[in-house]
Amino acid sequence: MTTPEVSGKGPLFFETLNVRQEGAVLFVEISAPPMNLLGPALVRDLVSLIQLTEANDAYQVLVFKSADPDYFISHVDVTRIRENRDAAAKLNGDASIGQLLRHLSLSRLITIAQIEGRVRGVGSEFILACDIRFAARESAIFGQFEAAFGVIPGAGGAQHLVRLMGRARALEVMLSAEDYDADLAERYGWINRALPANTLDHFVGSLAHRIARFPAAGHAVVKQRVNAIALAPAEDIRRDSDLFLEGTQSAEFQERTQAAMKRGFQTRSAEMNLARMVGDLDKHSTNQADHDA
Amino acid sequence: MTTPEVSGKGPLFFETLNVRQEGAVLFVEISAPPMNLLGPALVRDLVSLIQLTEANDAYQVLVFKSADPDYFISHVDVTRIRENRDAAAKLNGDASIGQLLRHLSLSRLITIAQIEGRVRGVGSEFILACDIRFAARESAIFGQFEAAFGVIPGAGGAQHLVRLMGRARALEVMLSAEDYDADLAERYGWINRALPANTLDHFVGSLAHRIARFPAAGHAVVKQRVNAIALAPAEDIRRDSDLFLEGTQSAEFQERTQAAMKRGFQTRSAEMNLARMVGDLDKHSTNQADHDA
Amino acid sequence: MTTPEVSGKGPLFFETLNVRQEGAVLFVEISAPPMNLLGPALVRDLVSLIQLTEANDAYQVLVFKSADPDYFISHVDVTRIRENRDAAAKLNGDASIGQLLRHLSLSRLITIAQIEGRVRGVGSEFILACDIRFAARESAIFGQFEAAFGVIPGAGGAQHLVRLMGRARALEVMLSAEDYDADLAERYGWINRALPANTLDHFVGSLAHRIARFPAAGHAVVKQRVNAIALAPAEDIRRDSDLFLEGTQSAEFQERTQAAMKRGFQTRSAEMNLARMVGDLDKHSTNQADHDA
Repeated sequence: MTTPEVSGKGPLFFETLNVRQEGAVLFVEISAPPMNLLGPALVRDLVSLIQLTEANDAYQVLVFKSADPDYFISHVDVTRIRENRDAAAKLNGDASIGQLLRHLSLSRLITIAQIEGRVRGVGSEFILACDIRFAARESAIFGQFEAAFGVIPGAGGAQHLVRLMGRARALEVMLSAEDYDADLAERYGWINRALPANTLDHFVGSLAHRIARFPAAGHAVVKQRVNAIALAPAEDIRRDSDLFLEGTQSAEFQERTQAAMKRGFQTRSAEMNLARMVGDLDKHSTNQADHDA
Repeated sequence: MTTPEVSGKGPLFFETLNVRQEGAVLFVEISAPPMNLLGPALVRDLVSLIQLTEANDAYQVLVFKSADPDYFISHVDVTRIRENRDAAAKLNGDASIGQLLRHLSLSRLITIAQIEGRVRGVGSEFILACDIRFAARESAIFGQFEAAFGVIPGAGGAQHLVRLMGRARALEVMLSAEDYDADLAERYGWINRALPANTLDHFVGSLAHRIARFPAAGHAVVKQRVNAIALAPAEDIRRDSDLFLEGTQSAEFQERTQAAMKRGFQTRSAEMNLARMVGDLDKHSTNQADHDA
Repeated sequence: MTTPEVSGKGPLFFETLNVRQEGAVLFVEISAPPMNLLGPALVRDLVSLIQLTEANDAYQVLVFKSADPDYFISHVDVTRIRENRDAAAKLNGDASIGQLLRHLSLSRLITIAQIEGRVRGVGSEFILACDIRFAARESAIFGQFEAAFGVIPGAGGAQHLVRLMGRARALEVMLSAEDYDADLAERYGWINRALPANTLDHFVGSLAHRIARFPAAGHAVVKQRVNAIALAPAEDIRRDSDLFLEGTQSAEFQERTQAAMKRGFQTRSAEMNLARMVGDLDKHSTNQADHDA
């Protein structure tokens, strides 16, 4: 991808994002090796991206995709939670990723997530904050697994999931901390649709350009009215964020995180099957035979 | 269809509706040639129909269908928006189609939409205001395409869609202004179910009679409790109606409408593929090659 | 099933429930012959079960299943409605099954319904109050049929259904009083998923143990935040309960119930096809030929 020269505004440069402009559509590829963890560099880049594109009417639609075929956004870097919050505060003064994502949902920009690979934890919350999301049937994997560590999703996951899929499916997704493939994610309403991987690029690109050709006034009024009904209030996002932060300070969270680290948490290969790993962290399991079966 | 003699109340005559009574079920066929646009005659007839049937306990269930196999209700006649509002005001004093439709949702009457052909714009809003809706898998096509002209749906479409399918799918449907077939409409929750066209008549007829045999007291209390949870407040319907009207007065709306008229907007043949037409209205497209591909 | 000795707390004995403990998971089998009607004995046992298991941290997850392959919970015993309410009042002082079920939804315990056979009326409301629910594709049958008797579901059914499946599908389910198989129940969001019967035991057991291995603090905060969004307020549950009770005192309800009793209502064999029976109660049907077709 080449970095575009935006007319009269200078080029967009980011450490963790590759951007390519086509008309009023900006394609944004997330590239934070080795596995697209959400750390301070990616948060800073997202803040800058939002500020620069919102301020320039040349942009109408942002399409988010990943440079890593296995990981879209893997999850938060658990060693950088505080730094992430400080970096997020640059956008609105609100030190929470949840508020950063809520800003994106409220933006005049239309955001589309094109999902290949794993999208878990704050990765799931990122795509849930986008306006529209399509996933590759063969490769996309979804998880909202914070409860495996004894905490709630920190950036709005619970708020979005329950509104999209209802109480029972949202509870299942969060309490099970399981991986969900794209077809099941579609049936549950987590994503708009699962599509064959080889059609995804063309489908999303065409849709993005189609939307970009329609009047910006329509985008704005539609989003405003939809958000008034379906977007969680700021205080609920803040409350979830506080509860998450509180939970991460518990001994139980620390112990589970350390146990996970010993099994390769936050490494590419071990997280290919994260659902199995987090199901195995409790050494005092009362029924080891059963869950190993 | 014959016009029934309602016991002691005189026959029901309408300009744009063919009605047939079977017990407590009234089958109402929309017939406003050449393509079932919503204009003042159809609005006047809907107002009369609602008033007459609500006032007569002989009626429990209304089934709406279309006399035109290609168009259920195509959309509003954009040249008659003011007249439509004035005609709608005869029902409650509220000059908006959205309030007319909300009245139908609140009615003691049970309404079932049996959908064949295209149902777009206010047509979609009409079926969304019905209590229950089934569509022919082979022929039904759904569109909520107002954003292609820079405006919000004017009669409650945004309110219904976001509550039925969640934020992301509702945004996709409205921002894309695309056509959706019956199977996808079912997956998104736009309709109750898509059924084979050759079973639809029997299925809907049987259901209507089944419901009509149950006590009216049950109908009333179930609708009252469901509406208390799921029906948009009157002020939100009014607000959407005002925003729509405001939008239609913009230069951009006028230009897009004129461009559409040149391409056959509001004619049968051109609207067979309306989604493509509205995707093509912007002559200044930044990526003509892409969307023509 | 054997009755477990709970460490230091004595065994759990119930008249209508068989329980089996595996680690922090309690499997609870409903066994109220001849057809698992909800009567005072089952209500008393549910109250005791909830009190005993909530008070003992050894329990994290309850799995509800049925000892009867044809009936999970058939529906309320209509001859014992008052007694049921009195028995339910033992839990919170609130004399309604709806409040008993709401207590379960608010509990720190995670509840999973494993559904085989028929689950209608208050049976449907019971599984809707559970946190998560899976059903056997081959045998599970769902019905929320109170409107056939002119009343609203009395224990929260309307509240849950409309939030899970939206206005039109919830109205269809209640107004039609029809039976729904597991696949359609999944498509409508009534249950999390329909699964092959021969995999259900293993799937639900594994999930229950998996959740039980995760920290209780996570269960609690996730349920608390989800319930804040998706659980009906107590006053709405009470209101539905009052409207139901009022309705059951009408002459129409009494007549329909007597007509149903003559056709075998509340007997195993006749209720195998309850949907057909309740569709036939109105002797004055205006279109007998049609619904017999």
